[in-house]
Amino acid sequence: MNDLIASLKEYISEERFKKIEMISANRTNHVTIAVENLYQSHNMSAVLRTAECLGIQNVHIIENSFQYQINKEVSMGSDKWLTIHRYNGKPDNTQACLQHLKQQGYKLVATMPSEKDTMIDDIDISMPTAFVFGTELLGLSQEAITMADEFVKIPMYGFTESYNISVSVALTMMNVCQRLRKSDINWRLSDNEIMALRLEWVKKSIKDVDGILKRYSEQNVPK
Amino acid sequence: MNDLIASLKEYISEERFKKIEMISANRTNHVTIAVENLYQSHNMSAVLRTAECLGIQNVHIIENSFQYQINKEVSMGSDKWLTIHRYNGKPDNTQACLQHLKQQGYKLVATMPSEKDTMIDDIDISMPTAFVFGTELLGLSQEAITMADEFVKIPMYGFTESYNISVSVALTMMNVCQRLRKSDINWRLSDNEIMALRLEWVKKSIKDVDGILKRYSEQNVPK
Repeated sequence: MNDLIASLKEYISEERFKKIEMISANRTNHVTIAVENLYQSHNMSAVLRTAECLGIQNVHIIENSFQYQINKEVSMGSDKWLTIHRYNGKPDNTQACLQHLKQQGYKLVATMPSEKDTMIDDIDISMPTAFVFGTELLGLSQEAITMADEFVKIPMYGFTESYNISVSVALTMMNVCQRLRKSDINWRLSDNEIMALRLEWVKKSIKDVDGILKRYSEQNVPK
Repeated sequence: MNDLIASLKEYISEERFKKIEMISANRTNHVTIAVENLYQSHNMSAVLRTAECLGIQNVHIIENSFQYQINKEVSMGSDKWLTIHRYNGKPDNTQACLQHLKQQGYKLVATMPSEKDTMIDDIDISMPTAFVFGTELLGLSQEAITMADEFVKIPMYGFTESYNISVSVALTMMNVCQRLRKSDINWRLSDNEIMALRLEWVKKSIKDVDGILKRYSEQNVPK
């Protein structure tokens, strides 16, 4: 993989490659985001943009009744740099997503504005944690609430009972990402994951990457 | 004013009055938000909802080319509990707004994702501070940049160059509000401001308030 990256990096600017190196070194899978059934495309797009800005590589999208759509004016191309997992077409996509996350070792934290929940500052993030967010008006499904390990809320001081969903995601994830980056938790990707991401991003940064890869594989055929 | 509140509170539930007391005691004008020329109604609505949730009473809306519109599904009625100042119809509404804020003693902090700016954690909020946010794609106007006293940015770790505008407002204001509430800065409203707000909110909580006020003033005519 290293050889291939070395060959391909000649086709992009040094500045771009440095950016790829720096950003991949700062990516995390230690925390991840799962969103259930958002139906306003500007909200979904703002969530992806926030994840990319914060360095959260994986986003899980549960599509029960609404298909994931991107509003390009809001997402600003952020989806290009993320690993997006979509769950749809099954009888229970919420269960499929959350079971997948549990199997990967994530603790599931449901985000709900209810009195008894833990404040976001106090959520323990020492183990891999997936934050699960519900739909705009109805919040999380009963399925998601049942499967959650913990519940978290964001401070509020007004009459309005919740933040806008894309704002909730941003406030929650900024809080945990800032705490993570200041901690001695091993939150970065593994070396292999970083190399795989660099290769993917270098490829995405080259216009005629398919032609170049074809020539590369022809030149590197074992003789 | 106290007598009038005492008379009117009989028309609302005790629970509602307690909420009004608690929320007004937690309101602040020490920090405020000015937004310039937002054109997506869901962004403006999310900004108002965030301000209300965070307890920021005053929001300043500069309408240079776009009129302020509310998306009720996003704002969730939050605008009812805020004091909204609109600047429009003048040759330079940005200047009108920012001069008004300066005259009120606010330091102007422009929010921009540029390298040389101060990180949000490091912005001094000991004096009254107004945070000025620009339009979705173009950011702040030259006028606003020229009038700003300081510049602030939010941490970012990805390729995308900025957060969505309603997310920027939320991340910035949550940061300063949390620091404010933990500090010994005198961030609350004055007693008079709190009483005026309580009266306004009690009135807004009563259906036939006009009829009740008419009867009240007839009964209280000096004899």
